[in-house]
Amino acid sequence: MIPGPVEFEPEVLQALGAPTLSHTDPAFIAVFGRALRRLREVCLAPSSQPFVVSGSGTLAMEMAVANLVEPGDAALVVNTGYFSDRMAKILERHGAKVTHVRAPPGDVPSLDEVETHLSRGGFKLMAVTHVDTSTGVLAPVEALTRAARKHGVLSVVDGVCATAAEVFRQDAWEADVYLTASQKAVGVPPGLALLTAGPRAMEAWRKRATPVASVYSDWAEWLPIMEAYESGKPAYFATPPVNLVAALDVSLGQILAEGLDARFARHQRMARAFRAGWKALGLRLVPTSDAVTANALSAVYYPEGVDAALVGGVKGQGVVVAGGLHPDLKTRYFRVGHMNRVGPADVLSTVGAVERALLAAGHRSEPGAAVAAAQASLLAG
Amino acid sequence: MIPGPVEFEPEVLQALGAPTLSHTDPAFIAVFGRALRRLREVCLAPSSQPFVVSGSGTLAMEMAVANLVEPGDAALVVNTGYFSDRMAKILERHGAKVTHVRAPPGDVPSLDEVETHLSRGGFKLMAVTHVDTSTGVLAPVEALTRAARKHGVLSVVDGVCATAAEVFRQDAWEADVYLTASQKAVGVPPGLALLTAGPRAMEAWRKRATPVASVYSDWAEWLPIMEAYESGKPAYFATPPVNLVAALDVSLGQILAEGLDARFARHQRMARAFRAGWKALGLRLVPTSDAVTANALSAVYYPEGVDAALVGGVKGQGVVVAGGLHPDLKTRYFRVGHMNRVGPADVLSTVGAVERALLAAGHRSEPGAAVAAAQASLLAG
Repeated sequence: MIPGPVEFEPEVLQALGAPTLSHTDPAFIAVFGRALRRLREVCLAPSSQPFVVSGSGTLAMEMAVANLVEPGDAALVVNTGYFSDRMAKILERHGAKVTHVRAPPGDVPSLDEVETHLSRGGFKLMAVTHVDTSTGVLAPVEALTRAARKHGVLSVVDGVCATAAEVFRQDAWEADVYLTASQKAVGVPPGLALLTAGPRAMEAWRKRATPVASVYSDWAEWLPIMEAYESGKPAYFATPPVNLVAALDVSLGQILAEGLDARFARHQRMARAFRAGWKALGLRLVPTSDAVTANALSAVYYPEGVDAALVGGVKGQGVVVAGGLHPDLKTRYFRVGHMNRVGPADVLSTVGAVERALLAAGHRSEPGAAVAAAQASLLAG
Repeated sequence: MIPGPVEFEPEVLQALGAPTLSHTDPAFIAVFGRALRRLREVCLAPSSQPFVVSGSGTLAMEMAVANLVEPGDAALVVNTGYFSDRMAKILERHGAKVTHVRAPPGDVPSLDEVETHLSRGGFKLMAVTHVDTSTGVLAPVEALTRAARKHGVLSVVDGVCATAAEVFRQDAWEADVYLTASQKAVGVPPGLALLTAGPRAMEAWRKRATPVASVYSDWAEWLPIMEAYESGKPAYFATPPVNLVAALDVSLGQILAEGLDARFARHQRMARAFRAGWKALGLRLVPTSDAVTANALSAVYYPEGVDAALVGGVKGQGVVVAGGLHPDLKTRYFRVGHMNRVGPADVLSTVGAVERALLAAGHRSEPGAAVAAAQASLLAG
C-alpha cells in the first residue's frame, strides 16, 4: 500500500514474465502499436504523439524538458513540493530560467498568482505536478493548463502519481505534454517512461534552434520508432523493453475495459473511505483542504506522541505503508498509496492495521470506529 | 537466435514476473545490493563503482559520455561500425571533438594507428565497441585499453553485445568504464542500463568544471543510491526497476555459478561450431579474419543469388535470425546471436534451419554436411 510501486494485476505480471519476443516479431509489433494507441486513449489525448521508453518517471520529466526547452527560455513552475523542485532542477540543467510560484507544503499555489505571472508574458513553458507523491497534494490542473494555453504558454503536466487514477483529459484540458511512469495507477512494474505530446509541443520541438542536450531523450530518435510500431512496422533505435511493453499493453487494456470514468470514480470512492478512516482515528492530512487532496494516496500526519516508527508498526500488522518524503516534514507523516487494484478490502485492511499500530504506539481512538467509518463511506458509494 | 533480446532462463523470467516488492523492502534492498556486487564480479572490476539504471544500452552509453566529457574535450573513437558511430554522435552531442580511427566494415582499425593518435596527446577519452552487434566484429579491447592507460587517456568500452560472453577483465585490462545492457549475454530482458566505472573515471567525473548535461544520467544522482543499496540501506532518486533488478540478480548469480571462464569458453565453443557450419554451407562471414570475429554472434553474407528473404525462410524453418544492420551492407548479410543459454542443440537446430532455407532459396551444399561439421566441432571441444 505504498504510493508506488503499487500492487499489479496477475495478468500484467504474467505478461512481464513471459518469454521475450524479438522486437521485430510481428506479434510484438502488434503489441507495441496497440500499447501506444491505448496510452493515447488513457490520457484522453487523441491529438497527441505517445512515447514509450525504457526509463523511470524522472526520465519522462527530462524528455519533456530536453525537447521543449532551449537555453535561456523562461519556465514557470507551479510548485507543490518535492517533484516540482525536481522539475525545476531539470529545467535549470537544460538552461531554463525558472520562476516558482510556491505554496506551503500541503497547499497549492494560488491560481491568481499563476495567472499574473503567465499574463506578464515571456514564459515558454509552465510545469505542474498533478499529484505530488511527497505530500498527496492535487493541483488544479485543468484551470492551470487552460490558463497556460490562454497565454500561449506550453503546459507540461507530471502525471506520475495521477495517470489512470485522477481525472485528466489532455486534449479537452488543453494540456500540451503529459508525462508519467508505469509503476503507479498505470499498473505496470517500474521501468517505463511514458509521455504524450500534443501538436503544439511537437511544433515547438520542431522549431528548436539548438540540439536537444541528450541523445537518449531526443524525440528525433524516438519519433520514427513510435510512428513505425504504431503503423505496424518495426524500427530500431534502442532495443525496446519488450516484456515491459507487453505488460503495459495488458494493463492499459484492463484500464480501458474498466472504463476511465469508472476507474476515476473507484479511486475517488476508495480515497473518500480512507479519509473517513483517518478522520475517525483523529488523524490530520498533509493536504490542507479537500480540494487539494489527491485520490491516489493519503499523506497523513502522525498524531501527537507518535513518530516514524509507526511505519514499522503498521508493517508488523501486515500492511506496508511508506514514510514521509517532503524534506520539510518527512519525519512527521506517513503515506498510503491507493492506486490501481485498490478496493474495499484494501481500505479496511489498511485502516485496521494503522489503528492497531497506533494503539500499540499509545494513540487511542474508539476501537473499530475507523474501519466502521471507512465501511460506511464505502457503502454510501 | 537473434543478437538480442536473446532467450532467457526460466528462473530469470520467473523473478521478472514475481509480485513487485517495495523498493524499500529489506528483501529488495538485499537483492539490489547483491546485484551490484555481482555486476562488479561479472565485469571482473573489483575497483569499480557499479550503476544499475532503468534504460537501454544507449542510455548506458550516454551516461558514460555525459559524466566524463566536458564541452571541448577531445575523444578518440575506435570505429568498428554502427555502434561506434552512435557513440560518436553521443560524444558530439555532449560537446566533444571526435576523431575517428576507422576500418572497412568487417575489420578493426589498426592498433598502430590508434597508438599514433593516443601518443599525439590531447585526448581525454577513447571509446571502443567490444563487439559491434551490426557486423559481429570483435575489437582487440585489451590492447586498446592498455594503450589508452599508457597515454593517460580514459577508456570507455561498450560491452552491450559482449558482457558475459566475450573475455573481458576490466581491472586487469585497465579499462576505465565498461557499459552494457541486460538483454544479451547478461541474460535479462531489455530495460537495464549497466555500467561499471573505475576509480580514474570517477575521479575525472569529480573534477568536472561544468554540470552534467542530463539530470537522469548524472552520477551525482545515482552514486548515493548505488552506495546506499550496496551497504544495505534504501535511498531514493528514481523508483528502481524492481522486477528487472530482481531478474538481474538471478541471472548474474547463474553466470557466476557457471563461472566466467567456463562461460567464456562455452561461448567460444558454440561460436566455433557455428563457424564450422557456415563454412560447410559455403558462406562467408562479415568479419574479415578469425581474430576479429566475435563469439557472441555470427554475421554471415548471403551467398550469390540469395537475398534478405532468407531471414523469413529461416523463420519458416522454425528459427528466428536477424537481418543486417550496418548501413553500408544491411541487405547483404544476416545475423545469428549465440549468447546466454546457447548450447549444442541451438547450434544444430539453427545451422540445420539455415541449410534448409538456403536450399529452398536455390543455394545448394552437400546435404547434412553443415550440421555434421558443426557437430564435429562441438565434439572436438
